[in-house]
Amino acid sequence: MSSQHTPTARTRVVREPERGVYDREMAYSILDEGFICHVGFVVDGQPFVIPTSYGRSGDNLYIHGSAASRMLRNLGSGIPVCVTVTLLDGLVLARSVFNHSMNYRSVVVLGTATLVQDPAEKLEALRHLSEHILPGRWDDSRQPNEKELTATSALRVPIQEFSAKVRQGPPIDDEEDYAFRTWAGVVPLAMVSRTPIADDRCDPKITAPRYASGYARRKR
Amino acid sequence: MSSQHTPTARTRVVREPERGVYDREMAYSILDEGFICHVGFVVDGQPFVIPTSYGRSGDNLYIHGSAASRMLRNLGSGIPVCVTVTLLDGLVLARSVFNHSMNYRSVVVLGTATLVQDPAEKLEALRHLSEHILPGRWDDSRQPNEKELTATSALRVPIQEFSAKVRQGPPIDDEEDYAFRTWAGVVPLAMVSRTPIADDRCDPKITAPRYASGYARRKR
Repeated sequence: MSSQHTPTARTRVVREPERGVYDREMAYSILDEGFICHVGFVVDGQPFVIPTSYGRSGDNLYIHGSAASRMLRNLGSGIPVCVTVTLLDGLVLARSVFNHSMNYRSVVVLGTATLVQDPAEKLEALRHLSEHILPGRWDDSRQPNEKELTATSALRVPIQEFSAKVRQGPPIDDEEDYAFRTWAGVVPLAMVSRTPIADDRCDPKITAPRYASGYARRKR
Repeated sequence: MSSQHTPTARTRVVREPERGVYDREMAYSILDEGFICHVGFVVDGQPFVIPTSYGRSGDNLYIHGSAASRMLRNLGSGIPVCVTVTLLDGLVLARSVFNHSMNYRSVVVLGTATLVQDPAEKLEALRHLSEHILPGRWDDSRQPNEKELTATSALRVPIQEFSAKVRQGPPIDDEEDYAFRTWAGVVPLAMVSRTPIADDRCDPKITAPRYASGYARRKR
């Protein structure tokens, strides 16, 4: 798992190569903390980028087929996609405009998305998607029926060709700029959950489960 | 500004069309609240999706040229891009697995990105990028010099072909599922800022400016 992954020409980080991370374990920790990805695919030369949820199982990503429904209707054999997950950790305020930055962790996976055809794998993929966002929720919910499963599609994207990019820490200014009189540092950013809001039709005697009332993304 | 925008075949929301919003004002309020976009472009048939910052000025988006540097090196005449901005507002817990969802607001802009060539417009584009994230910061920073401006590129994407998608509110379950005994509702999500962390080399007598210590995305 912690072995170094060799980037291809397409995934080698070109800009700020010192931020490039090719470690599978690091990439997976980013994928596991995030839960919204942006999926890119191409129709008639035009790129589309659609936000959607995802799950990971081993070396596969699963995404909701709905995201690429526009394209998948006609293509059963797989489509080239790019799946990008970005975690935003802070704004980096440098002395110079030029050295302003952000602290972030991101993963870019290039691959071929294929429809999951096997019903058992599809059900498992949907469970991964659900458990990735809200561990424990699947078992507390009314299970999918045949009609719903037919109406849902899942895509599999093998995590083979990927890169991660990480920027953390304070601003890095040009040496001569450190004397410039302005505040410099980092504004940390975080995604937080608030108190759950029960549906009006939810029996008030049913309290919000822990995965809802104490919702937080697991960090590794 | 509030006039309805007519979607093209490429931007008409296909999945869950009731969530489609073609109002320019609504789309701009989403673009103005977000500050990370995911830019999609195509190289040799392969889509790439890269996170980057952006700014808006009227009916143009400006993004850092670095995002598409891999591609722009060879193409001065403009490249088809998709710029997507997603704001995540909550997790929607329904009774059935199938009706789980997320509350979000997203905008998808399809267009052609061109390099900003005019030095004055480039400087202005970079100022928009900066002010979009941290209003007031530009004037407090050491201004870009000639060398830095040369090393930086900015891209202009006209906001012509776009769509927005909005999902808010409680879960919508199938009528027969409302009797299912499980908690249902929304877990609100928000991006928040924490106490700014001054750079070790920042004079402690310089206090963090309000745009850093009280950082929040403006909501319209």
